[in-house]
Amino acid sequence: MNTFGHLLRLTTFGESHGPCLGGVLDGFPAGIDIDMDFLQHELDRRRPGQSALTTARKESDRAELLSGVFEGKSTGCPIGFLVRNEQARSADYDNLRDVFRPSHADYAYYYKYGIRDHRGGGRSSARETVARCVGGALAKMALRQAGIRVAAYTSQVGSIALKHDYSHYDLSLAETNPVRCPDPEAAKRMARLIADVKREGDTIGGVVTGVIQGCPPGIGEPVFGKLHAALGEAMLSINAAKGFEYGEGFAGVAARGSEQNDIFLPDGHGGVRTATNHSGGIQGGISNGNDIYFRVAFKPVATLLREQPTVNLRGEAVSLMARGRHDPCVVPRAVPIVEAMAALVILDFYLLSQASNVKNKG
Amino acid sequence: MNTFGHLLRLTTFGESHGPCLGGVLDGFPAGIDIDMDFLQHELDRRRPGQSALTTARKESDRAELLSGVFEGKSTGCPIGFLVRNEQARSADYDNLRDVFRPSHADYAYYYKYGIRDHRGGGRSSARETVARCVGGALAKMALRQAGIRVAAYTSQVGSIALKHDYSHYDLSLAETNPVRCPDPEAAKRMARLIADVKREGDTIGGVVTGVIQGCPPGIGEPVFGKLHAALGEAMLSINAAKGFEYGEGFAGVAARGSEQNDIFLPDGHGGVRTATNHSGGIQGGISNGNDIYFRVAFKPVATLLREQPTVNLRGEAVSLMARGRHDPCVVPRAVPIVEAMAALVILDFYLLSQASNVKNKG
Amino acid sequence: MNTFGHLLRLTTFGESHGPCLGGVLDGFPAGIDIDMDFLQHELDRRRPGQSALTTARKESDRAELLSGVFEGKSTGCPIGFLVRNEQARSADYDNLRDVFRPSHADYAYYYKYGIRDHRGGGRSSARETVARCVGGALAKMALRQAGIRVAAYTSQVGSIALKHDYSHYDLSLAETNPVRCPDPEAAKRMARLIADVKREGDTIGGVVTGVIQGCPPGIGEPVFGKLHAALGEAMLSINAAKGFEYGEGFAGVAARGSEQNDIFLPDGHGGVRTATNHSGGIQGGISNGNDIYFRVAFKPVATLLREQPTVNLRGEAVSLMARGRHDPCVVPRAVPIVEAMAALVILDFYLLSQASNVKNKG
Amino acid sequence: MNTFGHLLRLTTFGESHGPCLGGVLDGFPAGIDIDMDFLQHELDRRRPGQSALTTARKESDRAELLSGVFEGKSTGCPIGFLVRNEQARSADYDNLRDVFRPSHADYAYYYKYGIRDHRGGGRSSARETVARCVGGALAKMALRQAGIRVAAYTSQVGSIALKHDYSHYDLSLAETNPVRCPDPEAAKRMARLIADVKREGDTIGGVVTGVIQGCPPGIGEPVFGKLHAALGEAMLSINAAKGFEYGEGFAGVAARGSEQNDIFLPDGHGGVRTATNHSGGIQGGISNGNDIYFRVAFKPVATLLREQPTVNLRGEAVSLMARGRHDPCVVPRAVPIVEAMAALVILDFYLLSQASNVKNKG
Repeated sequence: MNTFGHLLRLTTFGESHGPCLGGVLDGFPAGIDIDMDFLQHELDRRRPGQSALTTARKESDRAELLSGVFEGKSTGCPIGFLVRNEQARSADYDNLRDVFRPSHADYAYYYKYGIRDHRGGGRSSARETVARCVGGALAKMALRQAGIRVAAYTSQVGSIALKHDYSHYDLSLAETNPVRCPDPEAAKRMARLIADVKREGDTIGGVVTGVIQGCPPGIGEPVFGKLHAALGEAMLSINAAKGFEYGEGFAGVAARGSEQNDIFLPDGHGGVRTATNHSGGIQGGISNGNDIYFRVAFKPVATLLREQPTVNLRGEAVSLMARGRHDPCVVPRAVPIVEAMAALVILDFYLLSQASNVKNKG
Repeated sequence: MNTFGHLLRLTTFGESHGPCLGGVLDGFPAGIDIDMDFLQHELDRRRPGQSALTTARKESDRAELLSGVFEGKSTGCPIGFLVRNEQARSADYDNLRDVFRPSHADYAYYYKYGIRDHRGGGRSSARETVARCVGGALAKMALRQAGIRVAAYTSQVGSIALKHDYSHYDLSLAETNPVRCPDPEAAKRMARLIADVKREGDTIGGVVTGVIQGCPPGIGEPVFGKLHAALGEAMLSINAAKGFEYGEGFAGVAARGSEQNDIFLPDGHGGVRTATNHSGGIQGGISNGNDIYFRVAFKPVATLLREQPTVNLRGEAVSLMARGRHDPCVVPRAVPIVEAMAALVILDFYLLSQASNVKNKG
Repeated sequence: MNTFGHLLRLTTFGESHGPCLGGVLDGFPAGIDIDMDFLQHELDRRRPGQSALTTARKESDRAELLSGVFEGKSTGCPIGFLVRNEQARSADYDNLRDVFRPSHADYAYYYKYGIRDHRGGGRSSARETVARCVGGALAKMALRQAGIRVAAYTSQVGSIALKHDYSHYDLSLAETNPVRCPDPEAAKRMARLIADVKREGDTIGGVVTGVIQGCPPGIGEPVFGKLHAALGEAMLSINAAKGFEYGEGFAGVAARGSEQNDIFLPDGHGGVRTATNHSGGIQGGISNGNDIYFRVAFKPVATLLREQPTVNLRGEAVSLMARGRHDPCVVPRAVPIVEAMAALVILDFYLLSQASNVKNKG
Repeated sequence: MNTFGHLLRLTTFGESHGPCLGGVLDGFPAGIDIDMDFLQHELDRRRPGQSALTTARKESDRAELLSGVFEGKSTGCPIGFLVRNEQARSADYDNLRDVFRPSHADYAYYYKYGIRDHRGGGRSSARETVARCVGGALAKMALRQAGIRVAAYTSQVGSIALKHDYSHYDLSLAETNPVRCPDPEAAKRMARLIADVKREGDTIGGVVTGVIQGCPPGIGEPVFGKLHAALGEAMLSINAAKGFEYGEGFAGVAARGSEQNDIFLPDGHGGVRTATNHSGGIQGGISNGNDIYFRVAFKPVATLLREQPTVNLRGEAVSLMARGRHDPCVVPRAVPIVEAMAALVILDFYLLSQASNVKNKG
């Protein structure tokens, strides 16, 4: 099941150590200006090797668009694309051919398919998300035209968590440090923690917060296409994701209804606004015009650069010492992936919301 | 979008104050024994009016199966069903015809569709979930045959949270108290809190924990059909759900990889087992044979039995005093709904996992 | 797989001798006037027992709409509905419990599911199409608002075929005779043939022609959602359908390109029109604004009121004499079903064509 | 809508004059031997320039598999692939930039999307089908393992039609002549007709017959996933297809039920067989174990190498003289495409039929 979305559908393919990752974005609206510089910029944000906090694997990560674009504009036809793998060092993984890495997908894939490409995790590698970033960048180009903006940032690394919600920060600051945290002071502490963990050959988890601004009301399809359920599914499909919440989320369960309800007020133009936004911009599964915000939990990366006991294909206990190049914390590089998936969901449901109209030619 | 699932598809219809809720369960395997007593038992667990902690609305909630069953067994044809609304008191809602209830779906539906059935929340009412419980009960009958068990319980109400994870409790105790908490002492404190909140005309949130036992390895479809993403989407489609996490979830982000990795050990029969289950039974989106566990956050119910300011259809500020019969806390009645959605997801992905085999007639 | 459509989705359930047929129409636009008289009129056109040419089974075929309509208008929520079976005479089928009727679905169902409801063909009965007619009637109400009209008529019974294409006839005449043929003289000959065949306990096939007028250009989704492919799939899903063609169809293969091409001409308003319509209103899978026309072949009904040899569940040769009430020719009653399926397809793809637009708020 | 299939899903992308055609085959079973020679052989059968009867465009049509295969076997992960365009001569199409070719998709695409890639028909070109042949060849590798064979051949060109049904011919002879007709004498006459038509700058249509042998009973999903409806949709999605029929098809409507019914006989092993196969191997939408056969009508190619009047983007009447390289008759090259689509459908529904089983671990 390698296709995501309803009207806007991203299909991805490729393995970590194959010739390339790639995909097809289908259902993309015609006539959208395709900004290749922006596309590359988005891939650069996810690219390995961009700072001392991330994997040392070097990839230029250049996207080739193979179809669906004519003279700089989308044509409404499917956009096929490739991102080549340049620095796959498969020999690093020879020792994994017969071994299941703890808390990796190795065993589950092997059990399910009876065969697996062990090199770099094969299909289960987070390298697959480069294809999502291509799709997400294209979706952002269309959303930009509709006045919708998608942003994300690191809000927690290990136990270091931002104190305030998104509205307290200048989100553009997130891109000024390698952790992608909009609070420069916290970013420093987070970076230090990641460096410490890395030095120990260990890894650490964290949280990414996503924010969607400018989303019109009416987006979302009850009862099984609720906007927050689609966002949750999208975020949980990202490698290492362990949880999703929106609005007040888990913390809000301790509150009273009288504290959490978002009272409606006249907006002064005959419409309504809300006094607060505890709901996170979605009510009954449908956007209400407020900012949509949500949080995604990422576990510590499973690959440790230290010895671990495990079991091989023959069911024998063995010791495993990972080689290869790995992130000590996925969260900084997960930020653009969260944005990409959010952009795909919002554009998909935006298009769905257009589909309900019958012209009156009576 | 009122259909859920891939091979096993539940379509639901109906409004809170229409003649009935109903649905169609399609893709259900043939030859399964249909246990009508069990089906009714499942609906009784969700039924309103079952204790002082829940809404006073009285419904017998009897399911009529209209097709797909012949001489006590499923036939492989779609199972249509109805649950009639008996005690809809629509007049209670006359004062809501022109008014948007705070933090309800009223405004979002009205904006999206330009029309809404205001009676009891119409389609956005949690009464819709009775149809899910019918589908879930049927799914449980098939899962039972495959040795898979689904359970859920209340693990938090307001700030009162269970201290331990699911493995610490006898889950069958959950059904011995109206809160559905397997810790009888905590259940009493939770019940008291709900009663207090109700007395104040207020509401409170909570958390439901779900557990799936006996699930074989190999269930789940990467990369966009990951089992936990499907569970997350399913749970977030339940009314009032605000968050989903599995395994160590949000709490686990603060740990190191070396603490969280589930080391593989020989199982003594040539296969593998894990020393721990921090992953929550799913790795790379595929079940690994361990127990699957997850948590779902529910916000405090939006309907308060006290006066709130709001806005009407004409954009005028008005004061709203809800009538009608409402739960002060959805969590006890959400327990069977969480189970129902989990059962539907697991059976659906179980069937998907069967679909990959080509016989060798070479 | 009992759901049809992409954005407009009809799910049907029910068996010939169960309590009812029913369905759910999801994705239906909000705000459409629901005309219950028209709905009943459409069901009456398909109803058994309407003339001497059709089965003697008597059913009032009244549709109950259970949801999705409020104060006479659609709400955008799913429309659940039932049509009760009133005159199921299951005892007529007792002799079929262990026997496979020749050229019926009996054996294939039994082999596939290991169980079957033998009464009146169970799920495989054409009685299922009553649910399609409910969905189709609703779709027509929405299409009417968009200025799109769907019609069908009997163009062939046995070897008696109309000489001309649809444009030659006043299609409203089709409803003036029980055969539903717009050529009154041919209708009489067809009626006589059906009566003769019936007298012999035999059956006969025929062809229904469908016409869609007022369909705007731009409807259809290449390359796997071509409008004619969707129409073909829809028509072939009707019981007893054996073939589908559109435009010049099979006959057109013998022509030269120079004879069949539809030359474009200026339409006098800056746009284009075509000199001819050999294409049948669809080019490249997309409507071009011309009338869409197609033909559907229906085989002779398999149930004969005469003795036939066959085999029972134990693999023994037996002789079968069908009882029950059966149509000697399905074509007259297939006419409204062809219309219903065409209306569902066109509204679905009409909605899809709305979904590609992104507003420019730049 | 560029994805086809339910569990086995082929997504295609690319335009006639872009860098490549390509696609993703998802849901392909793991562990299938990937035979690259066979794959190339299948592409060669469809390749342009293979005989004097086809377009002179020269393409080597080599498929690159980019993922989903490891050490010669499929892994269960999506198979991405490319076929490069080598001899696109876009300048041949400069005169079409502003002009709608009669009976082509030009106008419909332009109207729908507001933009179009005019070079070689862009996305609407039959060159897209090279991607289907890659998918189909892979599907055949899996079907071969299950003992299922798919074949097709030219049964009619213009008015020259084979007299007998498929069972009368040695189908392997079809590949011994450029027309792909298993009757060598008829093949010669067909070839002569195509050559004549080509000399006149004109084109001609024809019919392809498809046959599926070894398909087990029980494949097909009523009521909206009937096997013949899926085959029909698949065939009608091929460029220039105008009609589909299976079993006796349109010709069978003139027969009596007593002539067409396939009487069941004991098969001598406790099961059943049929005395005839008028049904075409499918009853009630489900395969019954007999050979499945069907016919697909293809219209004469719209591109003529002679002058035609038409209209340009500004609505002005102009005269058009096509350049470029075109087939005078698509039928010989459509044969492998019909096989490819049939193989994709059968494998998809084969997998679906596996998905209904629940193991008994009670």
